[in-house]
Amino acid sequence: MIRVSIMGATGYAGVELVRLLLQHPEVSLRNLSSVSFEGKPISEIYPALKGICEERLTGEDGLFEETDVLFTSLPAGLSEPVAKKCREKNILLIDLGADFRLSDPEDYERWYGKAYAEPALHADAVYSIPELHGERVKQAKIIGNPGCYPTSIALAVAPALAEGLIETRGIVIDSKSGVTGAGRGLTQTSHFPDCNEAFSPYKVACHRHTPEIEQTLSELAGAALRITFVPHLLPLNRGIISTVYTEYKGKKSLAELVETWKAFYRGKPFVRVLEAGETANLRNVKYSNYCDVSLHLDGRTGRLILVGAIDNMVKGAAGQAIQNMNLAMGLPETAGLTMIPPAF
Amino acid sequence: MIRVSIMGATGYAGVELVRLLLQHPEVSLRNLSSVSFEGKPISEIYPALKGICEERLTGEDGLFEETDVLFTSLPAGLSEPVAKKCREKNILLIDLGADFRLSDPEDYERWYGKAYAEPALHADAVYSIPELHGERVKQAKIIGNPGCYPTSIALAVAPALAEGLIETRGIVIDSKSGVTGAGRGLTQTSHFPDCNEAFSPYKVACHRHTPEIEQTLSELAGAALRITFVPHLLPLNRGIISTVYTEYKGKKSLAELVETWKAFYRGKPFVRVLEAGETANLRNVKYSNYCDVSLHLDGRTGRLILVGAIDNMVKGAAGQAIQNMNLAMGLPETAGLTMIPPAF
Amino acid sequence: MIRVSIMGATGYAGVELVRLLLQHPEVSLRNLSSVSFEGKPISEIYPALKGICEERLTGEDGLFEETDVLFTSLPAGLSEPVAKKCREKNILLIDLGADFRLSDPEDYERWYGKAYAEPALHADAVYSIPELHGERVKQAKIIGNPGCYPTSIALAVAPALAEGLIETRGIVIDSKSGVTGAGRGLTQTSHFPDCNEAFSPYKVACHRHTPEIEQTLSELAGAALRITFVPHLLPLNRGIISTVYTEYKGKKSLAELVETWKAFYRGKPFVRVLEAGETANLRNVKYSNYCDVSLHLDGRTGRLILVGAIDNMVKGAAGQAIQNMNLAMGLPETAGLTMIPPAF
Amino acid sequence: MIRVSIMGATGYAGVELVRLLLQHPEVSLRNLSSVSFEGKPISEIYPALKGICEERLTGEDGLFEETDVLFTSLPAGLSEPVAKKCREKNILLIDLGADFRLSDPEDYERWYGKAYAEPALHADAVYSIPELHGERVKQAKIIGNPGCYPTSIALAVAPALAEGLIETRGIVIDSKSGVTGAGRGLTQTSHFPDCNEAFSPYKVACHRHTPEIEQTLSELAGAALRITFVPHLLPLNRGIISTVYTEYKGKKSLAELVETWKAFYRGKPFVRVLEAGETANLRNVKYSNYCDVSLHLDGRTGRLILVGAIDNMVKGAAGQAIQNMNLAMGLPETAGLTMIPPAF
Repeated sequence: MIRVSIMGATGYAGVELVRLLLQHPEVSLRNLSSVSFEGKPISEIYPALKGICEERLTGEDGLFEETDVLFTSLPAGLSEPVAKKCREKNILLIDLGADFRLSDPEDYERWYGKAYAEPALHADAVYSIPELHGERVKQAKIIGNPGCYPTSIALAVAPALAEGLIETRGIVIDSKSGVTGAGRGLTQTSHFPDCNEAFSPYKVACHRHTPEIEQTLSELAGAALRITFVPHLLPLNRGIISTVYTEYKGKKSLAELVETWKAFYRGKPFVRVLEAGETANLRNVKYSNYCDVSLHLDGRTGRLILVGAIDNMVKGAAGQAIQNMNLAMGLPETAGLTMIPPAF
Repeated sequence: MIRVSIMGATGYAGVELVRLLLQHPEVSLRNLSSVSFEGKPISEIYPALKGICEERLTGEDGLFEETDVLFTSLPAGLSEPVAKKCREKNILLIDLGADFRLSDPEDYERWYGKAYAEPALHADAVYSIPELHGERVKQAKIIGNPGCYPTSIALAVAPALAEGLIETRGIVIDSKSGVTGAGRGLTQTSHFPDCNEAFSPYKVACHRHTPEIEQTLSELAGAALRITFVPHLLPLNRGIISTVYTEYKGKKSLAELVETWKAFYRGKPFVRVLEAGETANLRNVKYSNYCDVSLHLDGRTGRLILVGAIDNMVKGAAGQAIQNMNLAMGLPETAGLTMIPPAF
Repeated sequence: MIRVSIMGATGYAGVELVRLLLQHPEVSLRNLSSVSFEGKPISEIYPALKGICEERLTGEDGLFEETDVLFTSLPAGLSEPVAKKCREKNILLIDLGADFRLSDPEDYERWYGKAYAEPALHADAVYSIPELHGERVKQAKIIGNPGCYPTSIALAVAPALAEGLIETRGIVIDSKSGVTGAGRGLTQTSHFPDCNEAFSPYKVACHRHTPEIEQTLSELAGAALRITFVPHLLPLNRGIISTVYTEYKGKKSLAELVETWKAFYRGKPFVRVLEAGETANLRNVKYSNYCDVSLHLDGRTGRLILVGAIDNMVKGAAGQAIQNMNLAMGLPETAGLTMIPPAF
Repeated sequence: MIRVSIMGATGYAGVELVRLLLQHPEVSLRNLSSVSFEGKPISEIYPALKGICEERLTGEDGLFEETDVLFTSLPAGLSEPVAKKCREKNILLIDLGADFRLSDPEDYERWYGKAYAEPALHADAVYSIPELHGERVKQAKIIGNPGCYPTSIALAVAPALAEGLIETRGIVIDSKSGVTGAGRGLTQTSHFPDCNEAFSPYKVACHRHTPEIEQTLSELAGAALRITFVPHLLPLNRGIISTVYTEYKGKKSLAELVETWKAFYRGKPFVRVLEAGETANLRNVKYSNYCDVSLHLDGRTGRLILVGAIDNMVKGAAGQAIQNMNLAMGLPETAGLTMIPPAF
């Protein structure tokens, strides 16, 4: 059994990790830490866990003991020092925050307003959407787990760029996320009467996931590209859909494109490429680690439109982190992640 | 492996059975029948199952072959003939409909507007909320699986009646159910703009679950009792809460009552009795087989108020049916039902 | 034109007053005060008002100037000193808070944890649900505007008690309110992922509206009575439904009861008594000052069940306060309140 | 008083017309027709109207009598014959359907699958978003009222095209609509458990509003242009947001652009141009005739992003139709449309 601890266990991604790891056949859950709720049983914060996990939340003391893998889900800048300790203790660190996602330190500084505190650490860090970067994660010691929006986007678009089917210029990404994406902290925008029966874009063309999206897409394209990215807040709990508008320069029919996507994701159990004529809906992936991708050709304007749907808390956070852990630890990729999405 | 088939697999309870049984470690899923969608893959009706269960839906032909257990989820009156065939073929029938819930044929006739077609069959039938009737289900050949409302109510109230702590007269039950309770069929009341941002009672004091509730509570009380039952439609997908108002005639404090409930449900893994001061919320049981029960004393009026919360599709339908199957087939009661409710 | 000011204009009831008063044909809106947002335009806090009301929020200074009527929507205890000033300046005070609702000072002390600071003031104060107490409001100088739950309950039950049709003992009230009832302040219970797709009772049998309900019903019954009251939080923005369970001791048929209710509310334009067989739904009163009441007889248990539905922010707060103002100032009762509820 | 009748009064746009016209100071509502519910009072279909409008629904007989203006809200193809009769009787026809929106008959045939039955009629027909085409409506005898999506888009983009600030090529429009947009008819996609907690695009790049959008934008640009348009279904009742992605070729700063938009809409009371840094949210326009427009510059990619938000049932249908009527009949543009959007 792999011994796993979590730092930041009472955030939304943290408690989702707890839920999934408790059901993971190869994992023994150890220390759960929380700055806000140290000393309390986690089931007091999340009564859904009553009778299932009554573990008391700890501080940082002892967190690293009897631990093979540590997941961190912390605000930007707080994971770096933890990663340093993990390296010393030879613990695999999987960070669900932003500290190990961007390979260019200038990107980090520009978008997060501070420099890396431990630049040397980043040489050991690997950013991994497993379907795209699964190979490199196998020897990793620090894993930067991707953001929710970038996951939904990269998986929809990857084959198009890898196969040179679209222009790298002019990509427009219109994403929509459920409210859990904003986290457990109380804010006016997540106050029920403010977001229920409401809808709007936010952080228009200035969301921090932008450089992460560009990093992944540029790598796939083999050339630096820039995208326009606008997220929107959906009045529902879970799920992200990204609608990606690209200029198509290929000759393949829609049916052939679907085959190309299927071939690209062969052997990748969590990406479901929908048939021509089908449309991705976040309803169909909720509570699961799947990413549904649908393809649409607009013959009138020469555009290829790609839609990616995920559960922002599973494939967009905790589930993908476990998938990365599975790959890094030599477990089957799907271990602990075989939840079937409910029909409703 | 137990071979299981489902009749009515594309109704909401049916597809929930499919989802749960696919994850059951001791079950091999065989035939899925559907009058409405015969010949189509179930994943076409429910795209959440894409890539997971592409099984084609059958008609009745061959349904009983290679089957140890048959679940039926059908309109009233249609399960009786199926049960007859199951008896002939020695297949365990578990009916999620109403045909085998009421032990008094007059109750059935009064509330469903028709008599039992096969009265003799009912001698072999057992109605079972496993926590209350689990013993009798062990030898059963036909199991009447309880309704969703009655389950949420009986589990909240049972200890009060069994221990004689409340008056049997004057019980008032105010229940609220999510919209999946109304099923997959299109109706004005489940049209989104009609039920979103809306709320009302329906079938006030004349819902068909009334005699089933009275049957269970009367048996617990050891005397015939009548209740007032009013269901309401909640603008959310899943879950039921029942708030039950009773006249308290005991002397125990709230803390002692909580202990009484805990003792009553000792060894019953799916009932979680909340502590004094806690309140059941359907959020905490969604997508799980748990029933959360909270107790509240109104000292000013001498009332004991009991709140029961379940997922109407799991503990209120498919999950409880599997729990009954487990008990009848000698499997661990929790087999295939260990899903942890998500925190959100 | 009547000159009106509002204290607490950025709370939910306050801003609803602003919206309705701006559309009132006989009102000129003057000073809007807000402790939290003094100096800012109200349209910055509520962008729905952009271009319609750009008024800057004031502090208390100057609030009483050029004002005939002052509405206060403040936490318990803060309206009394304001009322004192209004008496000095001969301004009609209409308090949407709790300071002038309870006629028995002990009730206030017991439920709010503090004594009245200005007991003498209360001799001049009148509590008024206009349909029940409209006469007394005509000369009032201080008006205690009713709570949302009590309004929905009293209007449903009043004819039953006034006509002696039900037992005064044993009344059970199960109420459900939308989230705006919890106000603009951020709390965990109004955090979107906590209350969306969730439902539970709260403050079971200990909500502060209890003594107000009992005061009104006791007065109607002509004898002190006690009720059991349990509120629940509905995952929607606006509206309250109360389902009230009573023991029927009359002989009238349901159709006759409906006629009795209609006669009771003759000339009261905001109460709509539904026909036998119809059921009140909060959808049908949203954004309006109506209260819909439906009646249901449970012949099996001898209960009369009464359902009252209102918009908690209009008839349950701002609209009713304006209705009280209209009556006190000699305006038509419906002035500024003729909004038709939208069908969706 | 202008005498107004409605054909298709029980559809969603129809009943919204009823609600708004009942509150219009210059209108007397006459005949309400409905194929589905002839003979029934409209308040039986929409209980929100109980006590307010108990008018019985008629068939076509007598519909044209005592009528100055007729609104039609009918499926494609059914308004043309009605328009013919209106011309004979000199009744102003305002069609909320699609029959008089497209000036090019080939567009109609291509997107609706049938030719105009009465081509000659269309010479008398005027398509009007009042802020853009208000002048031409003043003498109109047949008015094609715009679609909901096109309204939200055209008002956001118009100044950009009129002033030549953006490329006419490559415009991408990502729109999101509430479920009332799908109408009152029961469909699987508007079944509550199917669309609640769900989200997806639909009719990707093939929605029938596409030619209408292109017609309006081309006219503004002074050159034929093609757009990519993808609508999405939002799990809420009312409102549309369109996020429009354009290539900016101007030199103005964001603040200057905001001034340009404000100047363009000077004297147009229903368009609210938000300040730089503000973002349109459909919450702020619900139940009103406003269109909120926000502007956003993506300096990194040279894009100007325009967001338009409306209530799909008011500015997107019934409200805009009344606005057109006001202009055509010489009434103040805002008559009957002064509803203030509620803050929640």
